[in-house]
Amino acid sequence: VKKLLTHAVTFARIETALKPFADQISPLIIDDQGQMSHPWGESEADGAIVFGNTDAFFGPAAREFFKTVLTLEKLDWFQSSAAGLEHPMLQAIGGKADVYTSSHQQSEAIAEWVLWAGFDYFQRGVERRKAQAEAQWIRLPFREISSTHWLILGFGGIGQAVGRRIRALGGTVTGVRRSGGEDPGANEIISINEVPSYLTRADVVLLCLPHTPDTENIAGADFFAAMKPETLFINVGRGALVDETALLAGLDAGRPAHAALDVFQVEPQPADGAFWHRNDVTMTAHMSATTAQARARTDTVFLDNLALFLAGREMKNTVPASEFS
Amino acid sequence: VKKLLTHAVTFARIETALKPFADQISPLIIDDQGQMSHPWGESEADGAIVFGNTDAFFGPAAREFFKTVLTLEKLDWFQSSAAGLEHPMLQAIGGKADVYTSSHQQSEAIAEWVLWAGFDYFQRGVERRKAQAEAQWIRLPFREISSTHWLILGFGGIGQAVGRRIRALGGTVTGVRRSGGEDPGANEIISINEVPSYLTRADVVLLCLPHTPDTENIAGADFFAAMKPETLFINVGRGALVDETALLAGLDAGRPAHAALDVFQVEPQPADGAFWHRNDVTMTAHMSATTAQARARTDTVFLDNLALFLAGREMKNTVPASEFS
Repeated sequence: VKKLLTHAVTFARIETALKPFADQISPLIIDDQGQMSHPWGESEADGAIVFGNTDAFFGPAAREFFKTVLTLEKLDWFQSSAAGLEHPMLQAIGGKADVYTSSHQQSEAIAEWVLWAGFDYFQRGVERRKAQAEAQWIRLPFREISSTHWLILGFGGIGQAVGRRIRALGGTVTGVRRSGGEDPGANEIISINEVPSYLTRADVVLLCLPHTPDTENIAGADFFAAMKPETLFINVGRGALVDETALLAGLDAGRPAHAALDVFQVEPQPADGAFWHRNDVTMTAHMSATTAQARARTDTVFLDNLALFLAGREMKNTVPASEFS
Repeated sequence: VKKLLTHAVTFARIETALKPFADQISPLIIDDQGQMSHPWGESEADGAIVFGNTDAFFGPAAREFFKTVLTLEKLDWFQSSAAGLEHPMLQAIGGKADVYTSSHQQSEAIAEWVLWAGFDYFQRGVERRKAQAEAQWIRLPFREISSTHWLILGFGGIGQAVGRRIRALGGTVTGVRRSGGEDPGANEIISINEVPSYLTRADVVLLCLPHTPDTENIAGADFFAAMKPETLFINVGRGALVDETALLAGLDAGRPAHAALDVFQVEPQPADGAFWHRNDVTMTAHMSATTAQARARTDTVFLDNLALFLAGREMKNTVPASEFS
C-alpha cells in the first residue's frame, strides 16, 4: 500500500475515480488550513506517491504541503500538474522522488489566455472601453488576427497550442526552438540565432520559454529596440525571461506598443509595482492556466499514470533525473 | 464606356488595379466633402456602375453618395460591400440597378469581433481589469472556450465563420437555419422551432440573422427568460432583432449574464442610452466589420466582378430582383 498525498479539494474531486485502487493506496489529504487527515482511515504504508497541483501549490497551505512532501520517508512518485521544473521546491522534490512526472495540460488554457490578449490588442479594447465609458458612438477600425505574424519563442506545448490556434484563424506563425524541424502549429521553425531578424517583422512576440541560465533576461533593451512599432509583446513563460526595466523603457519608446503579462520578476507584484496603472500593459496574476478544464485534464493525467504505476508499467511524462540538480 | 462611381478613398486604393480597364470605364469619385470629380478626365459614357462600400456608406457624404446613385440616368450594376439588403437605400438601389451584387467579405472580421467578445467574457475581462486598476494580485479562474456550447441563430456567412473558429478552438456549435443540412462550422444544424429547448443549454447565444418581419424582436422576454444563468448574449445582426426593453430587464435578472452588442434599435446610440454604463454590457458602434482586411477583400470582389462584367460574363454574388420590393 502506498500513501497518496494530495490536497483535500483535489481529493474531493477525484475520490470516486480513486475507489478502484482502494486496496493499493491510502489517501492522506491536506486542507487549506494545513490540517492533515486520512479520509479512508490510516493504513500501514510502504512508500508514498504525491499529486501536486494548483490546489496545493497556490493554496494558503502550500508551504505545509511542500514541507510534508520533503519530509516523507520514501517518495516513490511525484506527479506535478505543471510543465515547469525550475521552481526550487520542484527541484528539491525531483531530487528526492524515484520517479517525477510532469503535465502539459495547462497549455490549452494558456493558449486561450494568449488569444484573449491578442484579440483585445488588435481590436483596440482599451479604446473601445474608453468610448463606451464616455458614451461616444465612434467607429474604431481594427485589425484581424488573420493578417498578423506571430513570433513564438519556445515552441513546446504552450507555443504549439497557441500556434495551432493562430493558424486556424489565418495568421502566420514562426516558432523558435533548438530542435528545429516542422510543426503543424507553425508555418516555419527557426533557431534562436535567427530571432533578431524576425523581431523587425513580427506583429506579436510571445515568450513561452522555460527559465534557464540561457533564457534569463532574454528580452532586454536590444530585444525591444529591434521590434517594429505597434508590436504586441506577451509573456506567459517566466518573469525572469524579461528585463523589466528595459521593458518599461521600451513601452515608453513605443516598442513594444503594448505588453500582456501574466508573469513577473517578483510575484505577487507589489501594490506599487510599475506595471499596474499603464494603459499599454494588460496584466494578470500568474493565472493564465487557471481553468477548471485544465484542472480536469490534469486530474486525468494523474489518474492514468496512477493506473500505470500500480500496474508496474512506465508512466507518461516522466522527467529524467538529469533535469534535477 | 461606363461611368464608375465610387468613393475617393476607395478609388485611391484601387486605381492601379483599375488601369487595365482604362478604355472601358470613366471613374467619377465623391469625397468626404461631397465634391465630385473625374480623376481620369470626363468621357462620354453610356450607363454607369457603382461600387458602394463602407467608405461611401458611413462617410460624412453618405447622403450625397446615395442621392447621386439614385439620380443616375442608367445604373447597369451596383456592387455593395455588404451582405445585408434591408436598408431602404439599398432596397431603392436594388430596384433601380440592372444587376445588384453583394459581398460576404465582412464575415471574417465580424467573426473575430465575436471571438473577442467571447474570450473577454469567459476570461472575466471586467474583473481582470478591475483587479489591475486596483493593483490587486488575485487569481481569477476562467473558462476555456473549448468547454462552451454556442447557439448561433442565422447560419449564413457570419454564423459559419464564427462556427468554424469555435470548433477549431474545441467548442460545440449548434447552428440555426431554415435550410437545415450539415455544415463544417457546426456540430449540428437545427430549425428555428427547436431553439427554445437549446436556449436552456447554450453558454452563448449569438444573433447573426438578417432583419425581416419574421426576425424582428425575435429576442424578447421569453427568449431571455429561457436562458440558463451565465449565458453570454451577442448581437452582430441587426438592432431590430432585439426587444431592448426585454434585454435590459433580462440583464437585471441575470439572463443573459452579459450582452455584447454591436447593433442597436437606434444608431447612433444617444449619449443617454441605457446600455453605455452597464458592467454587464460590452458595446461598440456598429463596427464589427470595420477592418482593413475586410475592405481589401471587398475591393477584390469588386475588381473580380468588374472583369467579369466588362467581359459580359455572369458576376459572383448576384442578388435576385425578387429581394427588392
